[in-house]
Amino acid sequence: MTEAHGWLCVAGLGPGDARLITPEAGEALAQATDVVGYQPYVARIAARNGLTLHASDNRVELDRARTALAMAASGRRVVIVSSGDPGVFAMAAAVMEALEGAPLWQRLDIRILPGITAMLAAAAKAGAPLGHDFCAINLSDNLKPASLIEARVRAAAGADFAMAFYNPRSASRPDTFGRVLALLREVCGPQRLIIFARAVSTPDERIHTLTLAEATAVMADMRTLVIVGSSATRRVGPFVYTPRSAPCAE
Amino acid sequence: MTEAHGWLCVAGLGPGDARLITPEAGEALAQATDVVGYQPYVARIAARNGLTLHASDNRVELDRARTALAMAASGRRVVIVSSGDPGVFAMAAAVMEALEGAPLWQRLDIRILPGITAMLAAAAKAGAPLGHDFCAINLSDNLKPASLIEARVRAAAGADFAMAFYNPRSASRPDTFGRVLALLREVCGPQRLIIFARAVSTPDERIHTLTLAEATAVMADMRTLVIVGSSATRRVGPFVYTPRSAPCAE
Repeated sequence: MTEAHGWLCVAGLGPGDARLITPEAGEALAQATDVVGYQPYVARIAARNGLTLHASDNRVELDRARTALAMAASGRRVVIVSSGDPGVFAMAAAVMEALEGAPLWQRLDIRILPGITAMLAAAAKAGAPLGHDFCAINLSDNLKPASLIEARVRAAAGADFAMAFYNPRSASRPDTFGRVLALLREVCGPQRLIIFARAVSTPDERIHTLTLAEATAVMADMRTLVIVGSSATRRVGPFVYTPRSAPCAE
Repeated sequence: MTEAHGWLCVAGLGPGDARLITPEAGEALAQATDVVGYQPYVARIAARNGLTLHASDNRVELDRARTALAMAASGRRVVIVSSGDPGVFAMAAAVMEALEGAPLWQRLDIRILPGITAMLAAAAKAGAPLGHDFCAINLSDNLKPASLIEARVRAAAGADFAMAFYNPRSASRPDTFGRVLALLREVCGPQRLIIFARAVSTPDERIHTLTLAEATAVMADMRTLVIVGSSATRRVGPFVYTPRSAPCAE
């Protein structure tokens, strides 16, 4: 690799614990000249000579992707950092969007480096609630209509998937998650298990399992990953899991 | 930690590349006295003094879990190894099942260590096909009826999720995947994108994107992870991705 060979990696840093960052992502960071990302994720990268850190605000994903691509095109070795996995509601799709209509950028050396996404870290702490078929749904309605969220939750619950909900609640849209909980109670019944996993693998970690009847919207914030079990999900000792085998079809 | 303190970790080794094993899993393996697992996964662990490797056949997950729990109860430091993430169609749920009716085992020090699951490694190689809401479905009908598989595929496709299919095809049930492909063509139309990702991150890796019209069941085997896009999934340059924003609801 010559100095002039620029590249762009989009790396997932996992949920918080440095021991959940893959060696592959660590290698890319060690070779980088520039790290680009939302400020709290860039703050996780140690400063060193020859490395420039570019921290940006949230909700400027496309600008951030274009900045990084332009730097790679100029010969820099750039890592965009995401939390979790970059392909799950994170920066990989934003980079792909930035390639639209940009044929020169499409020929760059671009690699997506997978990471431990929040739902898998949360599931591991709880036991194995995603041990059978499951869905991942982003409850943020910044980028999609609330009606689509409801349609997907209804379909997933109706087909008895376990479900992982990302970005369940923020101050700017406090009602979405409450409506989802009401819908889930209607379709799944009040005894269905729900897990609130906050700040998994950080010092603030808190894992809380209860029933839909007991759950309220204020139990979640933007650092919470919510998992709702299937009809088969059950407790055993301190754990929650979904058995690998399903009963005969409904 | 005293010699008498036994524990059990269920660790994911990721899809194949050693650089995708988390440092957390590496630490558990370094401290272990015993490694238990399906033979091809145990073969990835380097032998050393003080470590006993216990390789077993496939389809004996519950026996394997009980053997590991009994060793941990006797004071051994045991790691059960899975490929990918242990919580996704792998050994974590089997360990939880083995805890049923075993209150002494429920009090053991048991930890599930997350890993890079196949669908996230495959998605990263393809671009960002799981960049919006998605489902993970195990097509093995060893443990569930084919009718349930079809109902879940129909629900997921109908609600316009992207879909990741694990264990799409084996010699003992060659027809399931063909029926799923036919169902997907019916619900999603022939132009929907499908990705066959085989042996991701190994020397045998092969990523192949085509349309449902072009796809045939023999393109998958048990080392293949299949991703089917949502209606929004598209190509850009050499990549495939699902945009972060959804159009107005159907």
